[in-house]
Amino acid sequence: MTTMDAARELRRALRELVRLQQLRERDRTSAYGVTVSGAHVLEVLAERGALSLNALSAELFVDKSTACRTVGLLEDRGLVARLADSRDGRAIRVELTDDGRVLEARLRQDAVWEAEALLSALPAEDADGALRLIRELTRTSAAHAGAALAE
Amino acid sequence: MTTMDAARELRRALRELVRLQQLRERDRTSAYGVTVSGAHVLEVLAERGALSLNALSAELFVDKSTACRTVGLLEDRGLVARLADSRDGRAIRVELTDDGRVLEARLRQDAVWEAEALLSALPAEDADGALRLIRELTRTSAAHAGAALAE
Repeated sequence: MTTMDAARELRRALRELVRLQQLRERDRTSAYGVTVSGAHVLEVLAERGALSLNALSAELFVDKSTACRTVGLLEDRGLVARLADSRDGRAIRVELTDDGRVLEARLRQDAVWEAEALLSALPAEDADGALRLIRELTRTSAAHAGAALAE
Repeated sequence: MTTMDAARELRRALRELVRLQQLRERDRTSAYGVTVSGAHVLEVLAERGALSLNALSAELFVDKSTACRTVGLLEDRGLVARLADSRDGRAIRVELTDDGRVLEARLRQDAVWEAEALLSALPAEDADGALRLIRELTRTSAAHAGAALAE
């Protein structure tokens, strides 16, 4: 197989994996009545604590108005709250409510169980290498994305 | 590392990889003025030939109205055309125009070049295993997705 063939195959396989993971994520989140981006916001807030809309939209790689819409839907569900920044009354920060914290933990647990099923379905020799390889691919993609963002 | 820790790590790594791949795909497609779903439609039509909106929305895992909107945007750009099904005058099929074919080939080539860069950045021993592992993960995710779809 030439390098170009290998690249073609890897690209196709990666594309399918990304689509399937997106599909599964959509199934998991919609089961709880939240969108994929909504679930992403909940997770970012759980990991990083209260964030400004600017910080959130940067994390989500979306513009501020898109982030604002996503946050608005979560707010309507009582999963996040907006509060004035203590250090700057004009700045708004978004944080998880208790309900948001509970739902985020449930969504993450579902995703971890699915990853566990994925791991246990892999041949033993793959399972060991899987994490290292995915991280390697992620590291390299991140470098490319960074380069692209810097353009 | 316990199985649960490994699952947690794999899930986090997969999530990052999926996000970065989505981001890169968005960069690549927007550089040509098409959305990610638009590019997906072009690719599906290039691979499968003219399709009905029902077949397209099934391929994209979106409802028919979403597929219709995506196709409409591509039609405005002159990248796809709608035609009455020769076997059934009422049925509409979507096919690539010549411009659509040219753009799809360019988008795919960009993606393959990026996959090649990804491959060449991997340690040699990983490059060999990468394709097999990604396929393994895809196969297993597909089984899960299938199960979920069948629910």
